[in-house]
Amino acid sequence: MTTNTKPSLYTCLSPALLQLFDLTNSIVVIIDVLRATSTIATALHNGAKAIVPVDSVAECIRIGKQIEAITAGERDGQVAEGLQYGNSPFEYPEDFIKAKTLVLTTTNGTKLLHMALEKGAPEIITGSFPNLSAVCDYLQQQNKNVVLACAAWKDKVNIEDTLFAGAVINRLKDSFQIMCDSSQVADTLYQSAQPDLYEFMKARDASHYHRLTNYGLEKDIRFCLTADGSPVLPLYKEGQLIKHNSAIN
Amino acid sequence: MTTNTKPSLYTCLSPALLQLFDLTNSIVVIIDVLRATSTIATALHNGAKAIVPVDSVAECIRIGKQIEAITAGERDGQVAEGLQYGNSPFEYPEDFIKAKTLVLTTTNGTKLLHMALEKGAPEIITGSFPNLSAVCDYLQQQNKNVVLACAAWKDKVNIEDTLFAGAVINRLKDSFQIMCDSSQVADTLYQSAQPDLYEFMKARDASHYHRLTNYGLEKDIRFCLTADGSPVLPLYKEGQLIKHNSAIN
Repeated sequence: MTTNTKPSLYTCLSPALLQLFDLTNSIVVIIDVLRATSTIATALHNGAKAIVPVDSVAECIRIGKQIEAITAGERDGQVAEGLQYGNSPFEYPEDFIKAKTLVLTTTNGTKLLHMALEKGAPEIITGSFPNLSAVCDYLQQQNKNVVLACAAWKDKVNIEDTLFAGAVINRLKDSFQIMCDSSQVADTLYQSAQPDLYEFMKARDASHYHRLTNYGLEKDIRFCLTADGSPVLPLYKEGQLIKHNSAIN
Repeated sequence: MTTNTKPSLYTCLSPALLQLFDLTNSIVVIIDVLRATSTIATALHNGAKAIVPVDSVAECIRIGKQIEAITAGERDGQVAEGLQYGNSPFEYPEDFIKAKTLVLTTTNGTKLLHMALEKGAPEIITGSFPNLSAVCDYLQQQNKNVVLACAAWKDKVNIEDTLFAGAVINRLKDSFQIMCDSSQVADTLYQSAQPDLYEFMKARDASHYHRLTNYGLEKDIRFCLTADGSPVLPLYKEGQLIKHNSAIN
């Protein structure tokens, strides 16, 4: 970077492509819009003390018992057997979640977070539309390299995570060197989907939209696609996702 | 498929995602717009007897000697050491290539073709903008399941191959069940890039556009992004790509 001092921004559209990116000098943004990273932002915004992301149901149950926390998670879009709660942001209102710790495992999002850890990511945050501005503001302030890592669906590229990557790029592209075609694809998709992401998902019959509406979760989808309903920045520290600056606020 | 008799269409945006798709009951379209599959269509259109796609330079040299054929190929966008010709469609005019066999190896496209073979694809064709209509007409006639397989760039998703997948989907979406978000992303990208794909690539500073213009290959890019300059259907049979119906015509 001799001629250009802007930090770089890459987009990884699927966990199966994560090996193509060097995470060791970047902030990694884990993106699982429907619904893990929407739920993480919402639970923290509603006062959860911390969220412990784990990559298996067994681990979720074990740690839940050990620290006497709420266990939650889904497999294939539904509450996983043996866990108490699911992966909907509406399950975590303030009067339930305040000051509690949530141990969470999901099909794609929490697994990707652990992959990023294993690949040496020095700093991990999570993002979705409910905390879009918080993510963008933080990345802008930090002025470091960024990898936007989409959780996808069982490694298959999905529209909603790509849309969120596009939304971030759309806001930050003047402050970063946009280094890959995936970022351009995401930005173009986001611009095409404007102004109504929900209608776009519906019209495009996005596979995940379809899967969730089969479970009657339109309300979840609308919330997860709406900007800034849960304006916090979840930051991974020592095994937990906590609210950035939570010690100060 | 009890309620819907349309065949399925999937898009695979990178060779690193190929394992997610069942190729065993599908026509696989290998897409490497810049430039392998553009060059394959053009050489066949200009009368080449056959093209032997191989996945290494050593194999290219060996087979070239064995069958006394022209050896060609690139690594990282330039003529590979030990080979006679490169990967530009303009290197294969009729007065040079007619009735000859070309042994070709490229960074991404010919490798992906061999991956598809190993994964049991029963039928493989190649596509790029110079033979867009030929590909679409063939897929429509065959009425079988389709996987559009993008060669990408060293497993990183690229704009031009995604655009071609989008162009095919744009034409065929009423005749197929579009089964994945990747196909929707490709179709949306293509629609956004219209009417001038070259200007879109340039404006988006697509990584491959940038790489090739550094080598002075704007003419190649324009040709490779223009529909139907080489209207043939390359079909893989017994180790060779030949012109579909070439026995009859």
